[in-house]
Amino acid sequence: MTDRLPPEALLLLLGPRPDGALGRWIEDGLRAAIIDGRVGPGAVLPSSRDAATALGVARGTVTAALDLLVGDGLLVSRPRAGVEVAAVLGTGVPTGPGATPAPTPAAMPTPRPARPPSVGTPDPALFPRTAWARAVRSATAGLPDADLGYPDPQGLLALREAVANHLRQARGARAEAHDVVVVSGVAQGLTLLAGLLAGPLAAPRSGTMPAARVAVEDPSSPGAVDLLLAAGLGVDPVPVDDDGLRADLLPDASAVLVTPAHQFPLGVVLAPDRRRELLSWAAAGGRYVLEDDYDAELRYDRRPVAALQAMDPDRVVLLGSVSKMLSPALRLGWVLAPPQLVGPLVEAKTRADLGCSVPEQAALADLLRSGAYGRHLRRVRTVYRRRRAVLLEALGAHVPDLRVRGVDAGLHVVVELASRAAEDEAVRVLAGARVPALALSATGAVPGERFGVVVGTARVRDDAVAAVVRAVRGQ
Amino acid sequence: MTDRLPPEALLLLLGPRPDGALGRWIEDGLRAAIIDGRVGPGAVLPSSRDAATALGVARGTVTAALDLLVGDGLLVSRPRAGVEVAAVLGTGVPTGPGATPAPTPAAMPTPRPARPPSVGTPDPALFPRTAWARAVRSATAGLPDADLGYPDPQGLLALREAVANHLRQARGARAEAHDVVVVSGVAQGLTLLAGLLAGPLAAPRSGTMPAARVAVEDPSSPGAVDLLLAAGLGVDPVPVDDDGLRADLLPDASAVLVTPAHQFPLGVVLAPDRRRELLSWAAAGGRYVLEDDYDAELRYDRRPVAALQAMDPDRVVLLGSVSKMLSPALRLGWVLAPPQLVGPLVEAKTRADLGCSVPEQAALADLLRSGAYGRHLRRVRTVYRRRRAVLLEALGAHVPDLRVRGVDAGLHVVVELASRAAEDEAVRVLAGARVPALALSATGAVPGERFGVVVGTARVRDDAVAAVVRAVRGQ
Repeated sequence: MTDRLPPEALLLLLGPRPDGALGRWIEDGLRAAIIDGRVGPGAVLPSSRDAATALGVARGTVTAALDLLVGDGLLVSRPRAGVEVAAVLGTGVPTGPGATPAPTPAAMPTPRPARPPSVGTPDPALFPRTAWARAVRSATAGLPDADLGYPDPQGLLALREAVANHLRQARGARAEAHDVVVVSGVAQGLTLLAGLLAGPLAAPRSGTMPAARVAVEDPSSPGAVDLLLAAGLGVDPVPVDDDGLRADLLPDASAVLVTPAHQFPLGVVLAPDRRRELLSWAAAGGRYVLEDDYDAELRYDRRPVAALQAMDPDRVVLLGSVSKMLSPALRLGWVLAPPQLVGPLVEAKTRADLGCSVPEQAALADLLRSGAYGRHLRRVRTVYRRRRAVLLEALGAHVPDLRVRGVDAGLHVVVELASRAAEDEAVRVLAGARVPALALSATGAVPGERFGVVVGTARVRDDAVAAVVRAVRGQ
Repeated sequence: MTDRLPPEALLLLLGPRPDGALGRWIEDGLRAAIIDGRVGPGAVLPSSRDAATALGVARGTVTAALDLLVGDGLLVSRPRAGVEVAAVLGTGVPTGPGATPAPTPAAMPTPRPARPPSVGTPDPALFPRTAWARAVRSATAGLPDADLGYPDPQGLLALREAVANHLRQARGARAEAHDVVVVSGVAQGLTLLAGLLAGPLAAPRSGTMPAARVAVEDPSSPGAVDLLLAAGLGVDPVPVDDDGLRADLLPDASAVLVTPAHQFPLGVVLAPDRRRELLSWAAAGGRYVLEDDYDAELRYDRRPVAALQAMDPDRVVLLGSVSKMLSPALRLGWVLAPPQLVGPLVEAKTRADLGCSVPEQAALADLLRSGAYGRHLRRVRTVYRRRRAVLLEALGAHVPDLRVRGVDAGLHVVVELASRAAEDEAVRVLAGARVPALALSATGAVPGERFGVVVGTARVRDDAVAAVVRAVRGQ
């Protein structure tokens, strides 16, 4: 309770009082202050009466705003103690004497088998529930009747425009609304493209060939490789080194799947000469580059490298989604496709599911257009950068001899280990500590070539940091 | 009038008066009594004033409950005579003197773009925008953090439970949450099932066969046929007469796709003996019945026939969605699958898109659980019934010699015409009047066998009614 904020401090946190939308001012300002770490975990807010007086608003305006943040999981309401900032948003700093449990959501689920959260998924506590629900409401209210029939399978025009604009600005892409196809995430985008490569696009080159082939990074995401195989494609692994994919070793395939901005899992960036080599390979053979824009918007040390797509929009297909920035529970993503692929892709999307939910598309369009998406991105980037830094600092202090690969980006780190036994042990310890982790050897084409753990960093704090250190040290 | 119930009899029919939810008590109790036959067709209810006194409730509570039952088609309101139990609650299916076409072994026409017939789409003006946005908001706020990662690809447990409950109650299905797979609509459900029939399920029987085959109704939805063809399946058309699919003509196929509750497009209901014959065919060959629950919840003259699924849950796959009741813009549906298909279906769904949006699934679960979905259903049913009746009345008055097929249900009517010229003209006039319409000949396997127009009735009012009359009269 020593940590209670003086009412006047609220004004400093929130900034100048606007003329209207006072509830939004309080809610958004406090959320930003919490996510930015300007007000720390365990801090107790002034009483709603004192806050209302200090801010010059009605008491109900304060309580309504705080309720929304409680719903967001950013604040916790404690009977007789007041409303305090949730510990789940800590920055690695040990919490105060009133050790705070994770915020309890309004409705507890019925017990169910826990699926391990996968490496690379964001912290659900950062999902902006209120902002999302508000966007759905306002977008749904504003939709013309004509948009409430079967959707445009290519995607709502307003969203395609907003995505194109976002990709131009944030990723330097060459994007127009008519080249964007809205999909239910990168996985669906890949499945649809794989279907095209295995079917219609394969026709001219198939002849006597048994199946079209796609080159993939080695190591790479086992899930993505599975999708390609399930579509009937052959898969050719190509090694990755510290400059990314060995473009000089690319085989004669129909396409290559790459993660140039932040290679999964090694975390390296595709070097400029490799980018050029890759594009020459594609242009020479009428091949496609499937650019999974993995982690591109979570670069912490500099602006992310621009999308490859900008260098050859006729050969590069750019795939992205909101899974990291908002939540993988939303199932919304996009494919920015070369003009000749847009028609076949839309046809494939139509056959797959007739299109994506219109209210959700409209809501995402609103968030992108209003700038709320960009602001959210900057906030979560701050949080994730700090969590990654705390983990790396602990590893550097406790296991300085272990190599951590990759640039300062994303939601995972790779710690290399000497043997399969060390890898097994690390994966086991991390599973016990409920830290998302993946054996590095499971991502490679050749068993036994590389050992280590891929550790999800999005939720790694405090005790989880200690668990990671313990896991890779092998006691 | 001799049949008027004494007010006190209501108490006997409804059972003990609860402390709250008096409207529901009256509505549900009366519905049960009517369906169970404890109160027979033609019975006249006491006046709302007498009923209110006898039951000890406000008069408005009585009239609101009766209105909902009128909307259900269980009661009929007669000016100056009172409200009486509807006469048409038998199990007989309206039949007519229609000639039965010979079975046609011909292949279906070449694939068309897989857009669903807009003739069956609901009136977007009836989409409950506020209720939907509110459900998304409250569901999103209440989701535990654990549900904000990648979704359960089978579907959110809360939604699967709510859907199973709904299917048991509204469709008489044998449904449990573990047999439900949430999909992005019936089209996706069909695509996933078609993939299984063409792949894993085909293996044991394929041998030397070039492709697994699926029997379809002739005529049927061109979009659905296209999905099956796109999955690599062969398609065998089987004629439909006034009793529905000619089950005696079913070929040796892996499965059949049917619309038993309201055949698309002819609007007939699968007769009881045909249902049995169909199920024998399936059981005898280890085949599957894909039951598209088309229009099942939009029967206006009686309770809809129960789902086929209840008669053989090991062979029948029931597909449904919210497209008609809420909006096709939402992309939410379900597959109630035999136990042995659930695993393969979930795997296919995972490969397709990893699962459906969690906030939307949670919102639909809320609407189903709270009863809001059921109330909305009753409201729109009243509206759609009225619009259909107005159109049929106008057709009867102005073109009494034209035959309108099908039972009193759904969002479309079929008007048979004498020639392709008359059909072309009707489609042209309706397109000009912006009334959703489809040439009947486009739904059949054999060109030139049947002519007519399939007209969407969901939005047909006033000037649109005149346009339909003009279109089919051919001036």
